[in-house]
Amino acid sequence: MRQRRTFVVFGLALVFGLAAAGYAPAQPAAADGFASLMPVPERATPAAGKFRLDESLTVGGSGPQSRRADSAAARFMTRLAGRTGLFLKQDFLAERLTADKATVSYTYDRTGKLVPNEDEAYALTITTDKVTLAAATDLGLGWGFETLLQLLSADEQGYYLPCGEVRDRPRFTWRGLLIDAGRHFMPVDVIKRNLDGMAAVKMNVLHWHLTEDQGFRVESRIFPRLHQLGSDGQYYTQDQIRDIIAYASDRGIRVMPEFDIPGHSTSWLVAFRELASSPGPFMIERHFGVFGGSFNPIDERVYRLLDRFLGEMAALFPDPYLHIGGDEVEGKPWDANPAIQAYKKKNRIPDNHALQAVFNKRLLRILQKHDKRMVGWDEIFQPGLPTDIVIHSWRGTKALFEAAQKGYQGLLSNGYYIDLGQPAEVHYLNDPLPADSPLSEVQKKLVLGGEATMWAELVTAETVDSRIWPRTAAIAERLWSPATVRHVDDMYRRLRTAALRLEELGLTHFKNQDMLLRRLAGTPDIRALKTLAEAAEPVKNYQRHSQGVTYTSLSPLTRFVDALFPESLAARAFRMKVDRFLETKDPELGREVRATFLRWKGNHPLVLRLLARSPALLEVEGLSLALAGACETGLAALDSIVAGETKDDKWVEANLAVLADALKPRAHAELAVVTAVEKLVRAAAGKS
Amino acid sequence: MRQRRTFVVFGLALVFGLAAAGYAPAQPAAADGFASLMPVPERATPAAGKFRLDESLTVGGSGPQSRRADSAAARFMTRLAGRTGLFLKQDFLAERLTADKATVSYTYDRTGKLVPNEDEAYALTITTDKVTLAAATDLGLGWGFETLLQLLSADEQGYYLPCGEVRDRPRFTWRGLLIDAGRHFMPVDVIKRNLDGMAAVKMNVLHWHLTEDQGFRVESRIFPRLHQLGSDGQYYTQDQIRDIIAYASDRGIRVMPEFDIPGHSTSWLVAFRELASSPGPFMIERHFGVFGGSFNPIDERVYRLLDRFLGEMAALFPDPYLHIGGDEVEGKPWDANPAIQAYKKKNRIPDNHALQAVFNKRLLRILQKHDKRMVGWDEIFQPGLPTDIVIHSWRGTKALFEAAQKGYQGLLSNGYYIDLGQPAEVHYLNDPLPADSPLSEVQKKLVLGGEATMWAELVTAETVDSRIWPRTAAIAERLWSPATVRHVDDMYRRLRTAALRLEELGLTHFKNQDMLLRRLAGTPDIRALKTLAEAAEPVKNYQRHSQGVTYTSLSPLTRFVDALFPESLAARAFRMKVDRFLETKDPELGREVRATFLRWKGNHPLVLRLLARSPALLEVEGLSLALAGACETGLAALDSIVAGETKDDKWVEANLAVLADALKPRAHAELAVVTAVEKLVRAAAGKS
Repeated sequence: MRQRRTFVVFGLALVFGLAAAGYAPAQPAAADGFASLMPVPERATPAAGKFRLDESLTVGGSGPQSRRADSAAARFMTRLAGRTGLFLKQDFLAERLTADKATVSYTYDRTGKLVPNEDEAYALTITTDKVTLAAATDLGLGWGFETLLQLLSADEQGYYLPCGEVRDRPRFTWRGLLIDAGRHFMPVDVIKRNLDGMAAVKMNVLHWHLTEDQGFRVESRIFPRLHQLGSDGQYYTQDQIRDIIAYASDRGIRVMPEFDIPGHSTSWLVAFRELASSPGPFMIERHFGVFGGSFNPIDERVYRLLDRFLGEMAALFPDPYLHIGGDEVEGKPWDANPAIQAYKKKNRIPDNHALQAVFNKRLLRILQKHDKRMVGWDEIFQPGLPTDIVIHSWRGTKALFEAAQKGYQGLLSNGYYIDLGQPAEVHYLNDPLPADSPLSEVQKKLVLGGEATMWAELVTAETVDSRIWPRTAAIAERLWSPATVRHVDDMYRRLRTAALRLEELGLTHFKNQDMLLRRLAGTPDIRALKTLAEAAEPVKNYQRHSQGVTYTSLSPLTRFVDALFPESLAARAFRMKVDRFLETKDPELGREVRATFLRWKGNHPLVLRLLARSPALLEVEGLSLALAGACETGLAALDSIVAGETKDDKWVEANLAVLADALKPRAHAELAVVTAVEKLVRAAAGKS
Repeated sequence: MRQRRTFVVFGLALVFGLAAAGYAPAQPAAADGFASLMPVPERATPAAGKFRLDESLTVGGSGPQSRRADSAAARFMTRLAGRTGLFLKQDFLAERLTADKATVSYTYDRTGKLVPNEDEAYALTITTDKVTLAAATDLGLGWGFETLLQLLSADEQGYYLPCGEVRDRPRFTWRGLLIDAGRHFMPVDVIKRNLDGMAAVKMNVLHWHLTEDQGFRVESRIFPRLHQLGSDGQYYTQDQIRDIIAYASDRGIRVMPEFDIPGHSTSWLVAFRELASSPGPFMIERHFGVFGGSFNPIDERVYRLLDRFLGEMAALFPDPYLHIGGDEVEGKPWDANPAIQAYKKKNRIPDNHALQAVFNKRLLRILQKHDKRMVGWDEIFQPGLPTDIVIHSWRGTKALFEAAQKGYQGLLSNGYYIDLGQPAEVHYLNDPLPADSPLSEVQKKLVLGGEATMWAELVTAETVDSRIWPRTAAIAERLWSPATVRHVDDMYRRLRTAALRLEELGLTHFKNQDMLLRRLAGTPDIRALKTLAEAAEPVKNYQRHSQGVTYTSLSPLTRFVDALFPESLAARAFRMKVDRFLETKDPELGREVRATFLRWKGNHPLVLRLLARSPALLEVEGLSLALAGACETGLAALDSIVAGETKDDKWVEANLAVLADALKPRAHAELAVVTAVEKLVRAAAGKS
């Protein structure tokens, strides 16, 4: 679901406290891999000693024939070789070295099933001369290899794995990422590299949002007009889908498709106008929002179509779950249709919500016939539905708890809307099962986990990775690690390492920023824009839709704002530095803050020089000027604090007004460092 | 073909001279699109005035139904919107605006055939209120849209297209890029983005090298063991191939497959050991070179397999040509096979070359049966073959001319081996039909064009784009533009713009350098490595194979050298600056050279700091130190020149020795700025 309701920052109670569960971050050296694990394992016990990596390293395993195990071992070696430059033996699978003969040995008992509550645990033991990885299933095995890759460390002598033990398993069984390929199509390679990213942080469900008002993205061989007329030619063939499912399975990831009905269905109705509640005709929707194109719930032909189509999809997607959306059904077309009104009256259906329940019950029977379990957004939660459906909550934990109390399984996505540009910590501290939940132990088990949602109004294949990564690693940790692992600063420290390592998987979250800026600037020298980008972030929540521009699915998303990271870690570091300076008055910190102000202020003329040759960049002039202005205020406040002087109220008032203005959105972006300047201004007046 | 013979720099006669054919580079303003066209059109006539771009722009066309024309127009609008940020009307195709009603109007008479010598001409007229693009075929139309995109210009008022006219058509009909997917597999998205790159510089043949000793990369439904056993699971499905062919066709590009036989065939023989000349068994080859795995030319089963397999491929690939390789057949297995020896004796076949001719004649009949024309490397050129085959020359123009004189069509690849790391100018000045060719006008027509060859021993999907681009744009210009367009400096000036614009197509030639360096450094701050990279290039030709390391198809290609551009344009700019300084003794240039020396020298400690945490980077210490040393020598020489002093012979000798040492390969790379320092040293001694 996707509606622009007011965004409620959830769980921002900044519960600090050191990571628990047997792992004390202070223990290993900072450069050591144990300190950079993300998600933090259930139990990690560093020990003295190092397993040295060299070209004699061998990998061998024992377990039943498993393509997943083979591919996990092979990818482990390729990535290890790629990072270290070592010519490791990579065609080891041909030789089938047994576990006892290899220096990196692995065992697993069976092939894991890609279903909820499967065993994903693994155990890792590293001594100076042997690495042992053991798991019940090849799923756990895959996660173990990912942990091993994160443990890779280096010192003056070379690369090594630090000795120690890891005993690990996930807290939640459903750790998902929703990718919306409906509003903007995401080509196969985008999906694949994001599956690699998910695997690297131990996420295990790709929720693939395949139909939307703006696009019908899956080939139907039974009803080819659906994708032919509903997709602008941008859809996945069934072969591509099978390929992606196999790719995901190799990485221990389920692929659950979503076909959002009966609302959000305009793209279906381009081909099947006669099945709509309103007369149509329908075109592929270009605008975003909640639209009138919805199925007619009293037309038997609708159920015949859905039966055959969902039967086709049920055979294509092996996952036991199928998501039917069910959110944001616009009532107007139903109200305006006399036949539907008559039906409601005749059958004593009080409102459209109840009418949707009728639709859902029919749908449920269809899914049951095709051996799929139903997942849907909050709206599908209605009395009378069997308890084997799963409620996917965009509304919040309250809805989730209510469902659980009535015996329904649930998933949380409220608080994990990564398209809204919130900082990672907001998502990180958002727990599907917070300590104060009202649920019994039995009810708690019904909360399966959660999903980060990458809704795609304002992203393209060029920018989607930077909206997903690295922040989704924080959500992955929330869903995998013990509930007590909640130290925000430590998370951010590890997030930096995770972000760098995610790049080796082909993800473009860093590199496309530069590419977009080069395109805008028309020159490879984009230093000034990068400097401005440090201090800026895209406007949050749904604000970008109220900046005087109406975005459609065809609008270019190649502006400065599209190149910005949703969360600037540089800006965050600066804000924290200001906080520490105000706390300690450490002159060295003061000098550093000063140097940053000077650099940002001095950047403005450099930005202006670039604007001269790029009309598309003209919009950032105001943003850059506002930053320079805020820096000037910051410098004055800093000087005053350092000199031990106190600024008067008039000065404070005038400068806070400057900063309030600097906070306003410009070029669809906002400055992420102004709040720190405000603190300096208040401190300069002796207030804080 | 691929053998490591001595590389002969061909055509390095630096024939300067201004671009001819109606276009004088000095005429338009530097920022104007006319000055950045690449390839240079046959005729371009800038005029006064500007066609202003705004959101009212409309595109409309007239011509027979053509997916190629539609997609060209749609891509034109998407890219224009992407670059300018303008919300252009992108679903214009739905409305089918006719040419007369649109501000950007296009017409074409017919759908072009993807065969040699098809009409690819187009004419473009830009006035202040209308853009008119006319072509005989939708192929020409596509090239016209690419030219329009290159003409995009900007001034203080915004974006515009400069008024003027272009009348354009290619000099050669065959402008190819060979991508070797055999030695390293190149996934579908790599092929697609390179097809986009090719289209942007008007190349029209993808030569897809699909089988090699190291991999059999195409799905065979008749003989599935070929790809199952010969590819490590890395092959293109037939659906993917069809998808790529359609993608190429939309962009006016033919796709010619190559199945290299009877040598270079080890990967086939993994499945069909019994068809080899030697007993086997065979494994997928991991090493590079010329190997013994070759088909047995006297075994009838070989021809039955090839008949059926090539029949399957002939149906899959619509191109009229099929490349059979035929190069570097290793004679030893034939010599060692008594049956083959007996056959040769019996049939009076004097040598293995003649035996291959027997093989080729059989192969030719098979291709004729499947309605394909044969293309092969030089080695296939033997008396008795019909003249409708095409000789593809890796040996040079001499071989090409000999073939043409005997009535054979030919293609040049000698001099276009982009895997060898030569500077763009070497390729640029390499003409398939130089002014002094001995051919008659009729014979000249037999020289169809040429192909850049991206052999893949030492590239992966991560690095291949940076080996192809931007240098291949220079080859594209050689094959498209009039022979008189040969101004090297002007080519380099335009190459910079072309390189930037190629990025919008998803090509990774710039952005993966940073990614690779970040992976090596383990930090986002890679400035020191970027600075070192300015001055360095990978070793040239086949030198990387003699650096004390044996590369295989499984070796990691993630070192510093892999991140380097094959040609550093920064190093070239520095060398030219030194030349100009020595010529003019302009003190400002001297100061700039000095500043660069100081920056490079001062970079060494910064590099050292990165090495401390990255063992994989340790190998660059010597390279960085050698650069610092060369800069020290350069500074001393510069000081001396500026002071008007003369260094003595002893100093010169000692410093030239330092520089000779600095020129040695380190970390598989070499410094591309040392020759400039040598010039300064000589000048400091009053010599030059």
